[in-house]
Formats: sequence, structure tokens, C-alpha cells
Amino acid sequence: MKERVNAYDVAKRAGVSQSTVSRVLNNYSHVKKSTRERVLAAVDELGFTPDEIARSLANNKTRTIGLIVGNISNPFYAETAHIILREARDYDYDVIIVDTDSDESSFDRSIQTLIGKRVDGIIVASVRKDNKKISELFKLNFPIICYNRKVDDDRNTNFVVVDNKQGAKMAVNHLIQLNHQRIAYISGPCTYSTFNDRFLGYQSALKENGIDYDKRLVYQNELSFDKVFQFSLDLMRNQNRPTSFFASTDHIALAVMDAAAQNGLHIPYDISIIGFDNIDIASSPYIGLSTISQQKKKMASLVLKELIAIIDKKSDQLIQITLEPELLIRKSTGMNTQIRNNR
Amino acid sequence: MKERVNAYDVAKRAGVSQSTVSRVLNNYSHVKKSTRERVLAAVDELGFTPDEIARSLANNKTRTIGLIVGNISNPFYAETAHIILREARDYDYDVIIVDTDSDESSFDRSIQTLIGKRVDGIIVASVRKDNKKISELFKLNFPIICYNRKVDDDRNTNFVVVDNKQGAKMAVNHLIQLNHQRIAYISGPCTYSTFNDRFLGYQSALKENGIDYDKRLVYQNELSFDKVFQFSLDLMRNQNRPTSFFASTDHIALAVMDAAAQNGLHIPYDISIIGFDNIDIASSPYIGLSTISQQKKKMASLVLKELIAIIDKKSDQLIQITLEPELLIRKSTGMNTQIRNNR
Repeated sequence: MKERVNAYDVAKRAGVSQSTVSRVLNNYSHVKKSTRERVLAAVDELGFTPDEIARSLANNKTRTIGLIVGNISNPFYAETAHIILREARDYDYDVIIVDTDSDESSFDRSIQTLIGKRVDGIIVASVRKDNKKISELFKLNFPIICYNRKVDDDRNTNFVVVDNKQGAKMAVNHLIQLNHQRIAYISGPCTYSTFNDRFLGYQSALKENGIDYDKRLVYQNELSFDKVFQFSLDLMRNQNRPTSFFASTDHIALAVMDAAAQNGLHIPYDISIIGFDNIDIASSPYIGLSTISQQKKKMASLVLKELIAIIDKKSDQLIQITLEPELLIRKSTGMNTQIRNNR
Repeated sequence: MKERVNAYDVAKRAGVSQSTVSRVLNNYSHVKKSTRERVLAAVDELGFTPDEIARSLANNKTRTIGLIVGNISNPFYAETAHIILREARDYDYDVIIVDTDSDESSFDRSIQTLIGKRVDGIIVASVRKDNKKISELFKLNFPIICYNRKVDDDRNTNFVVVDNKQGAKMAVNHLIQLNHQRIAYISGPCTYSTFNDRFLGYQSALKENGIDYDKRLVYQNELSFDKVFQFSLDLMRNQNRPTSFFASTDHIALAVMDAAAQNGLHIPYDISIIGFDNIDIASSPYIGLSTISQQKKKMASLVLKELIAIIDKKSDQLIQITLEPELLIRKSTGMNTQIRNNR
């Protein structure tokens, strides 16, 4: 395979035009039997996949969609990507995944890469809220939909999200009902809508329950395991330590749990931890992480279905869907036993 | 963006040939200043990314590689994919991930998809050992390299793997040294080299230690959580139950751990469990899974580096690298306390 074959090579080999190749591969009528046979023989000789080529010739579609994720090693992205990949196959679509490594400067390049690959549409699972590119593409009628994230210009974007503010309120209210007052919050930066909304929910739940906001209990930065582990460790070693943590992703809640173990703190007797996302491992009896479910299966199926409807021009309405979150109580949260020490 | 732009559109808009567009975008000399300006204006007007197009025009390269994984929701794949994605960016390459959902019938389609997208090379992280397509592509000088897997026709394939047989022997020998004799084995089917080699290592370690092979203790089938959970549960409820499990992936070892918890068995006092892969969560103090490290960071970096050397024609030798596995002892394995009951 010195040079890779394309429709032009097939046309040349068969001695016909590219449009004839297209007509044969699409089973159109009005093609002479001998011509059809010559084209199919050429396809065969060149080791070609007629359906791929036929598609792109016929309707200018690649039947490929792009999926932009923040970090595929975060199980939330990996597990939803897997659902999207599996279901896309049922729609006869392929998926190109781009991982921005949570580096916003690579976002525009990710979009360029996907458009350069001529994808029919894009699902954006991670993007900063001040991004302008998505609404630009939307205005150009390019099929694009946000998933798990929104951008500020939300009059000009399609999205499927969970109600993140409400979910965060549910998490914090659950801790408050267990008599926790000093509730640490671990999150990525508010430049992402998901973290911004969860932070609003955290603040709002505190306020509604008459608990003062204490910024010393709040981490809002890069969600690296090492940094969150260290922050949690330091906080837990404090005399007046928090009795509970709300981690805005399950993945990073595991770093908080590890810090608790390192500190010899028993979960939930000494410290309660709640996450967000309901990644698979959260339900393991060894982890047993209380969390907020994003209904990831429903959300992933829905975003794919809606994107394909947009591509197929079956929908020309703005798609803006907000799903209800769900509180899942497991063994990582329990009644605050140190209430006297901490007030 | 009713129609997406390409180099042809730029040429048309600028009133020049496609090769002139190519020459301008590659900064070749012998292009009139006014022509250059016209082309760049057209590029700008059409909202084009010159570098992408320039590349593909100039050297027929897309600077994109394909990565075929078995199931991206398995953290082994997700974590190695993340390393490959991050390091590929340093080489100025993009990566298209295809997830076969461990469905071999979709493997050929995955290859077709990637070649249809004109990738410069492919990393194959999951494929059955009897696959013929990989050596066919290799013989056609298409840059392709196996990672974590080998195929039977290994004279005609590049690969980077860990010594899976040796790794499995290390795992089983570790259990035997802890006085375990009844050692269950949980694995995917032997149609994959990785599982085949690990099974050979399991059998070999038993034999060298004079322990009879008991096929009732062996699961070799689809690695679905539910099926492995049920198999393990049934085995653990058996009167003459195994005192230890060797799970051929860490991901599925978690299903065995869950079955132990469901059965009220304490790890490692009642039952020892060892995995393979060293996924991130294995080192969590709550999981503490003993395992065999594949040196995934080194392996992932190496496979990418070697593939790019092949693409750049800096290497025309067969790449066949086998890394040494490493035994990591954590809290999930301990001395067999039931030795009398089980002999």
C-alpha cells in the first residue's frame, strides 16, 4: 500500500468517471451491467470498501461524528464515551474521540481536527463556558451539541445536561441533614459551567440552611489527583477540620477518600464524603460512594440521538434538555458524630 | 456552513490552482506576492485552517493516527489512551479512537473506518490472535503496530507487549507462596493473545508447583461484570471453595471483590485476590489490589514513539518489544488461613 486508494483510483482503474463509480456503489439505476461489473471488479482489485466511499461520494457525509472529552482517563468520560460509541454503531456512525487533556488552548485545535476530518457533527463533553466557537459553528448550521457542559451564549447552543445546581444542592442538603455544618467543597474551576453550577448549588444550600460560607474549605482548581489529595490532607489535619466533603466529581472524590485513609480517618464515622457523576466504581462495596447520578446512560443516549436528528435535518429546533439529578446514598456518608467539637 | 470548505474552495475563491494553494500554504518560494495575498485572503474568508490543509496537500499525510481499543470504559484502555493522546500532541499528531466493544466482527470495520479517514498509522490495542488483516496491512507497508496484544502471524507484525505468561506466573507463584492451592482463574477468551498467554502462565505455575489443574475453577469467557460476579459468587458459595482468585484484568478483579463482599468474605483473611494491569484505582487504599504491572506508561509511550518512527520511515525494522512485568503486593492478598479445610 504505497499509495492509499480512493474513489478516483477506482474510476481510473475501471475507465469510468467518478460519478459513475458513485452511481454503481449507490445502486442507482441507469448503469450498464458491464460498467457496473467493471467498477465492482476495480473496487475488489484495489481492496476497497464500497460502502465507505459510496457514502461520502453520494451524500457528502462521512457518517462520522466527533466527541470532545476533557480527559478520557476520568471514568465519567470513559463510561459515557463507551455508551456513545456503542450506540453510534447502531445508527451506523463512527466516532472520533478527541481528548483535550482539560487544556482549553487545545480546544480550538480539537474542533479544527474534527472539521478537517469532515465529521458530520460534534458532541462537546468538555468546554469552557466562555467559549465562542460553539455558537459560531451553530450559527453556521454546523451540527454541534454540548453534553454535560453549557456555554454562556446559550441562546445559540444545543445542549443536554443534568441540573447541576440542583444536584449540588441535593448533595449538600443530604450532608446538612446528617448534621454536618463544616462541609468542604472540591471542584474544578468555575470557567466550566458544570463546576460553576455545582458551586452555585453548594453556596445556595449553605445559605438556605444558615451556614456561613468559608472559602478556606473550598478547592477550585485543576482536578489533579496529587493536588486534591494534598489539599484534603492539609484540611483534615486542621484542628477545626471539616466533618464532610462534597467532591464535584466521583473521580476526584477518590482522592479525598485516599487522603482520609492516609490520615487514619474512618469513613463515614470520622468523615463523610459525597461525590457527583455516579461512575461505575462508586457502587463497589469497597468504595460505596454516596453521589449524585447524572443519569449518564440516558444523557449519553439522548445527546447522540439529538445530534443525529440535527444531522439528518429531522430537527431544526434548538435542543436544550436539562435532566433531573438523583441522590444515591451509600456508605460514605453518615451522621456527624463530632458536632460538639465543631461548632 | 452549508457546505464545508476544502482546498478546492480556496483555490476557486482565489482564482488559482490547488497546487498554488499548496505552495502558498507551505511557504514555498516562487509565488508572486499578490497571488500569495489572494490565497491567504481566501483562506481567511472561508474560515480555514491553513496548517491542516497545507499538511495534507504537501505530503499526503494527515498527521492523524488511529487507536483501536476493546472497551474504553475499561480503565486499562482509558488510562493508556489518555497517555497516547497526550504524548501524540507533543509529536503534533491527532488520534482517532475506535472502540470495538470487544466485538471482533467490528474489528475489520474499525480498520476500514480508520483507513477511510486516511490515518497515517494505527495502534491496535485489541484484536483476536487469529486476525489476518494486521499482517496483510504490514506487508503492504502500512504503518501498524500492536499494543498489549499479538497475532499468531507474529513474523509479520510489530508489537509492544509485556511478558504476559511471565506476569501470570508471578501472580500465581505469589499466591502459592502464601499457601494457596485452590486458585481460581478469571479471564477473557484465549482467542486474545493476552488472555492466552496469561492462561499459559497460570497453568505453568500450577504445574511447576505440583498443583492439579481444575477446570471448575476457571472462567474464560466474555468479561462482563454481571457474568463474572455471578461465577465468582457461585464458586465462593461452594463447600470446597477456592481460597484465592487470579483475575486476568484489574477491572474484572473488582467484580470478584464485589462478589466476596456480597458473600461476607473478608479480603484477604477469607480470600485473596490478585489482578493484572495496575489500573489507577488498584492502588487506592480502599481497593488495595495486588496486581501485575504492565508498566503501562512506558508501554504506551514506547508504542507511540515506534509507530511514529515507522510513519517517518526512520525505522524499517520489525518492532518486537516485550517488557518485563512487575509484581505489586497490596492488601488484597494474604496467607491462606484455611489450608486444612481445603486439602
